[in-house]
Amino acid sequence: MYRTNTCGELNLKHAGAEVTLSGWVQRSRDLGGMTFIDLRDRYGITQLVFNMEADDALCKEARKLGRECVIQAVGRVRERSNKNLKIPTGEIEIEVNSLKVLNASILPPFTIEDETDGGDDLRMKFRYLDLRRNPMKNNMELRHRMAMEIRNYMDGQGFIEIETPAMIKSTPEGARDFVVPSRINPGQFYALPQSPQIFKQLLMIAGYDKYFQIVKCFRDEDLRADRQPEFTQIDCEMSFAGQDDVLNAFEGLTKHLFLRIKNMTFNGPFPRITFNDAMDRYGTDKPDIRFGMELTEITEYTRGRNFNVFDDAEYVGCICAENCASFSRKQIDQLTGFVKKPQIGARGLVYVKYNKDGTIKSSVDKFYDEAAIRKWIELSDGRPGDLLLILAGERVSTQGALSELRLEMGRQLGLINKDDYAPLWVIDFPLFEWDEETGRFYAKHHPFTSPKTEDISLLDTDPASVCANAYDLVINGVEIGGGSVRIHDKSLQQKMFEKLGFTDEQANEQFGFLMEAFRYGAPPHAGVAFGFDRWVAVFAGCYSIRDVIAFPKNNSGRDLMIDSPSALAPEQLKELRLKIDNRE
Amino acid sequence: MYRTNTCGELNLKHAGAEVTLSGWVQRSRDLGGMTFIDLRDRYGITQLVFNMEADDALCKEARKLGRECVIQAVGRVRERSNKNLKIPTGEIEIEVNSLKVLNASILPPFTIEDETDGGDDLRMKFRYLDLRRNPMKNNMELRHRMAMEIRNYMDGQGFIEIETPAMIKSTPEGARDFVVPSRINPGQFYALPQSPQIFKQLLMIAGYDKYFQIVKCFRDEDLRADRQPEFTQIDCEMSFAGQDDVLNAFEGLTKHLFLRIKNMTFNGPFPRITFNDAMDRYGTDKPDIRFGMELTEITEYTRGRNFNVFDDAEYVGCICAENCASFSRKQIDQLTGFVKKPQIGARGLVYVKYNKDGTIKSSVDKFYDEAAIRKWIELSDGRPGDLLLILAGERVSTQGALSELRLEMGRQLGLINKDDYAPLWVIDFPLFEWDEETGRFYAKHHPFTSPKTEDISLLDTDPASVCANAYDLVINGVEIGGGSVRIHDKSLQQKMFEKLGFTDEQANEQFGFLMEAFRYGAPPHAGVAFGFDRWVAVFAGCYSIRDVIAFPKNNSGRDLMIDSPSALAPEQLKELRLKIDNRE
Repeated sequence: MYRTNTCGELNLKHAGAEVTLSGWVQRSRDLGGMTFIDLRDRYGITQLVFNMEADDALCKEARKLGRECVIQAVGRVRERSNKNLKIPTGEIEIEVNSLKVLNASILPPFTIEDETDGGDDLRMKFRYLDLRRNPMKNNMELRHRMAMEIRNYMDGQGFIEIETPAMIKSTPEGARDFVVPSRINPGQFYALPQSPQIFKQLLMIAGYDKYFQIVKCFRDEDLRADRQPEFTQIDCEMSFAGQDDVLNAFEGLTKHLFLRIKNMTFNGPFPRITFNDAMDRYGTDKPDIRFGMELTEITEYTRGRNFNVFDDAEYVGCICAENCASFSRKQIDQLTGFVKKPQIGARGLVYVKYNKDGTIKSSVDKFYDEAAIRKWIELSDGRPGDLLLILAGERVSTQGALSELRLEMGRQLGLINKDDYAPLWVIDFPLFEWDEETGRFYAKHHPFTSPKTEDISLLDTDPASVCANAYDLVINGVEIGGGSVRIHDKSLQQKMFEKLGFTDEQANEQFGFLMEAFRYGAPPHAGVAFGFDRWVAVFAGCYSIRDVIAFPKNNSGRDLMIDSPSALAPEQLKELRLKIDNRE
Repeated sequence: MYRTNTCGELNLKHAGAEVTLSGWVQRSRDLGGMTFIDLRDRYGITQLVFNMEADDALCKEARKLGRECVIQAVGRVRERSNKNLKIPTGEIEIEVNSLKVLNASILPPFTIEDETDGGDDLRMKFRYLDLRRNPMKNNMELRHRMAMEIRNYMDGQGFIEIETPAMIKSTPEGARDFVVPSRINPGQFYALPQSPQIFKQLLMIAGYDKYFQIVKCFRDEDLRADRQPEFTQIDCEMSFAGQDDVLNAFEGLTKHLFLRIKNMTFNGPFPRITFNDAMDRYGTDKPDIRFGMELTEITEYTRGRNFNVFDDAEYVGCICAENCASFSRKQIDQLTGFVKKPQIGARGLVYVKYNKDGTIKSSVDKFYDEAAIRKWIELSDGRPGDLLLILAGERVSTQGALSELRLEMGRQLGLINKDDYAPLWVIDFPLFEWDEETGRFYAKHHPFTSPKTEDISLLDTDPASVCANAYDLVINGVEIGGGSVRIHDKSLQQKMFEKLGFTDEQANEQFGFLMEAFRYGAPPHAGVAFGFDRWVAVFAGCYSIRDVIAFPKNNSGRDLMIDSPSALAPEQLKELRLKIDNRE
């Protein structure tokens, strides 16, 4: 038996008890005739004490133990003279009478403390050491706790978790698939699922009216901080359900998680705003509504004053930063620099200072008289002391830039409380998205999303204006999940594929089995999928999903710890009937 | 709103209520002026009734509905005159006053009833229809319930579920990997995990002392009824734990599942028998101990009577079938045919009839006198009326054939109660397995399994006799899971790789990161993994794991429903820098 107790549970009630503990040496210090060792395991830290006077040999042995050594110590619990009330075990210590080194440790490449000196690459390469740190451990435990709460809540609501296959079929629509060559079907490949979308729809057709699954999904795309080639989705689908049923069901889940994980309650339903409103008011379809500073469009009040930048712009809009009229030239220049960064993409920033004394100062004074500028202020609900920040250009990209500027101002002004959570639903997304590059429509959500019934007639005449039964859950500016009411009618699905530029043959080859399934009594159904990694990251207060994944890959899709991907043995390639094509 | 209630919940208490139901037409029948429709959903069946007199048009509409149509019906709950007490809703029916067809259905390719007329291929191709059948639905619900119980039990025991990566590194040891080409690392591949073995060991090194995961695993091997290219494992690992800790912890899980799923309790610990005892007594390392009829070795009592078959045999053994002395010549011939089947592989069957009157009749009468034969009977605890069935040959294969014969006799004699469950642990497996073909040792469990401390010295002198800290859980003759105490010492792990024929270079290239990790304070650890599909199949009473997997693949690794695997588009191959090599 390696231990009678963990390092996180002993307290004064155990005083006098003989115990055995096992764990890692967190740190040790020698004070005169005494040696103190903080012994760590998953549950906490317990102080071991060795007394030179009582056992000279044992104490000397203890002094040899380096950080991260794994030891087993037997001893008696006693009250500590110098108590540490910050930790549950801080009132006691163990007077050790025997010690065993279970495994030694060489010096770790970085410090295993809450704040570490290890860089990203080093932490990834020695991930098993990084995972020993409290912040990582807390994230892993949070992730587990959230998964448990999700499953128990969904189960309690009558949902059934069904595993869908991980080796499916490649479809060129959407993001790139990872593929898996089949050895027993030479020249053929499976694909790893980007989502279980089609399978969950087939489960609805199979009659499992409330399905969920916490499931790995895969997407071969270029990576960034919140993307990983493999990620985890909370995948859900309901039959005989419309948009409200889904929103209500998963608002229930969301509130449950907030209650059980963050001890937060929300009164009344989450706000629901349409995609168009979100764009107009926040410049983004994933608004952070923890603070105001909404966008105001002033396009029509800027025309005809010979200021070409505004005259030529499809859209002129602003945000009103409270009490910022006193911003210095340098501060304004910094904001101008911010919006001109390539990833923001504005060409310049116009400001209006509505000074405390009621006077006005603007960078476009010479084009606009005071009345005109006061109109902008009025439209933005500006008060004396406020600063208007104005961007102009193509509508969507300028709204996007204003959104980024709004978030930047929110951060600078301390308007964003990181302990505050503001969930909302964004609804009524457009069905299609036009792609300039390929000159065709793509499905904004996916090709199985249904148009609003009243818009079906627009499919042929004005596809861009067709509204979808699609919705997203957004928390603090992060898209946590999204879904839609699905098409369950074969002819409508066919029409949808046609609008997306599929030939009948392509549609049949790729999705024929789904359309065939629609012929055997497909019920109306709708669903949603949440990004589990992102949700955990939002609850953990982490910027990157990497911090909530035990063994993530880096931006080149590499696992630095196991050094993967890697070359295959020639016999493996031969068995798979594959050759590497090195030509460009 | 599509429904106020499900088709499984209404009863007399609801009489008089106006309800809306949605579901599938299971069957309909016209009786005089009435039409009855059984409406089905996931929760049950409710009878709808239409009355020609009350509403002629509606009743005519109802008569047009074919099987598997999806409809919505509004009506009033009323007591049924002709009650069906076999189903919970059998005392009521719905007097329908309005009806809506939500989706039509063409005639399904097989009958959607508990007993179906669909063949395997048809059921696989239209899996979404097969899944509508009660036996399949019950299996899916059982699977979900078991997963929930497992997670809640493990969580309650302090285990934490951590997701390990699905895209890892290919290692030639063990079964074949499925691989995934990396687009951004051309010429390199990920592998899909055969198990999270190394990652869970790294999690132990990371300090997560109680880990579990219900996780998809992948193995590219030739398929049979209880094998699928992707399967689900309950993967578990513990630190500061030895064999007894693991066996006790997971005996707890097993008993919990038996209690919660099968309402069965077991008094006292499960039997634990050594691998050697299992082979001697049952001829297999996964014995079905629901019945006796154990093997008896009689080798030494068969020598020197000029019966070459026995004299030349390494092993002569028998089973004693109670009250079978009266077996006819034909019955004995059939058993002889059975043991001579290629998959059993015996060369013949010797019998001894110990007749009710005390006389003896044997097929080897002319070689052995009555005293010799009576000795065999005595060793086998035979009583008058019993039949001894004797096989001879190479030890292991003959024990295996006797094991099959024992199971066959158990079935024929009705000794196996399918509602009975007999779990046991098989322990003390050999560390290595010799492979004649390649002339080398393989790890019986896997290369990370520790030898018993007292056998370490035999690693160099007599590897075949080294006993491992390895164990299997067996239920009703099915290996549900297995595990081992792991090596946590770098030099012992190196020695193990050496014994398995790895060069230092190979060991470092494939498992260097693990051996490196052992240097930073690796705790003693041990674990186990269970085949979740098999466990569900055993609890469901299914022979094939396919019946407990929503979307399985067939024996050629094909998903007949989505028609996968399939060829890739040439651009996909090009992006991956791959060419198909069609040469033999």
